[in-house]
Amino acid sequence: MSEKSTPNQVSANTLRRLPYYLSYLKSLKNTDVAYISAPVIASELDLNEVQVRKDIAAISSVAGKPKKGFEIDVLIRDIQAYIGCEDNNCGILVGVGHLGRALLAYKGFEAYGLKIIAAFDSDPSVVGTEIAGKPVYHIASLREFCQSTDAAIGIITVPAEAAQSTCDLLIKSNIKAIWNFAPVMLNVPEGIIVQNENIVSSLTIINKKLAEIAGSKQP
Amino acid sequence: MSEKSTPNQVSANTLRRLPYYLSYLKSLKNTDVAYISAPVIASELDLNEVQVRKDIAAISSVAGKPKKGFEIDVLIRDIQAYIGCEDNNCGILVGVGHLGRALLAYKGFEAYGLKIIAAFDSDPSVVGTEIAGKPVYHIASLREFCQSTDAAIGIITVPAEAAQSTCDLLIKSNIKAIWNFAPVMLNVPEGIIVQNENIVSSLTIINKKLAEIAGSKQP
Repeated sequence: MSEKSTPNQVSANTLRRLPYYLSYLKSLKNTDVAYISAPVIASELDLNEVQVRKDIAAISSVAGKPKKGFEIDVLIRDIQAYIGCEDNNCGILVGVGHLGRALLAYKGFEAYGLKIIAAFDSDPSVVGTEIAGKPVYHIASLREFCQSTDAAIGIITVPAEAAQSTCDLLIKSNIKAIWNFAPVMLNVPEGIIVQNENIVSSLTIINKKLAEIAGSKQP
Repeated sequence: MSEKSTPNQVSANTLRRLPYYLSYLKSLKNTDVAYISAPVIASELDLNEVQVRKDIAAISSVAGKPKKGFEIDVLIRDIQAYIGCEDNNCGILVGVGHLGRALLAYKGFEAYGLKIIAAFDSDPSVVGTEIAGKPVYHIASLREFCQSTDAAIGIITVPAEAAQSTCDLLIKSNIKAIWNFAPVMLNVPEGIIVQNENIVSSLTIINKKLAEIAGSKQP
């Protein structure tokens, strides 16, 4: 699948599922299982089997063998290649609160193509420190920093009321993609990528399922 | 990340979008806009217009008026009622690291039906403290705590290697739904709700879009 470069044919939902496949497949690496079937993947990840087959077909040329399924090592390799794990994008983070610290300390990003190279804040108690080996600079130096580096992704972990101005500053500083963890919608000019991370999205699903359980137990 | 429809035929993806609608609609509350059209919502949230109409039809009986659209106040009320914002589920959190602290301090959960009532850890430096007004207890007291409260949701923010044992403990303690932030797949018995939060899912989308931009600029 080395020459496969048709990202527009793969939906955002498929892309979103790839890390789950990868995480699950990797969990099988130290077992004696060499092959895995679409129904098993679907069952383990609570997905639809047809969806799993489509996803695999979209990003890998591996063919499932009858009664065996897909070779796990090949699937892992193809998903990693598709996600672009080898080609790291540099990112910076703005807002060194609890969530910002959690993201700075998170070890899993580089495996998925993101290298956070610096953080920014205005709080004198954190400016000048390092968090998980990443330097924290004053927000006033953000634009200059970006001009001298090739940071492409800006991670916003500031409070909601500061998110839009932070976003504007990042775009002025030549950042091409915004990963927004603040619970607000951001206005950005055409051509800028925005990915909103709304942590309560999953909560709505949990609550609905709990309500269903409660409902099914009522007479 | 379930793609299966819930029995009342509202898909997990629709549920996942509701907080985005709500967040956007609320941002219009202090303006003089009283009505909003599906195309405008779709454009603002980077969604498909047909999808927006379907989502609204699934959770609200409000009818859009020609040339005006949907009444914002009614839409907000219907989405809140559907999500079950009024009926809080109690939750507990295990693992008071950076991410755990960020979640404990997050003010947005109660508006979406989750009240975190306590946190648990084994680290003596945090046990006995309070974070954002929530007490931190020793993990050894988790089971007893759950038996004396009606906590239904267990939030896992421990390291990957401790996630499964934490999950097992939560289930033994009568927790019905697991919200898992550890980057591993959990094994749970039938009937237990698991919602995995894989933070790198969005990253795969950002990276693919960046790769598309880079590709389109090449000769």
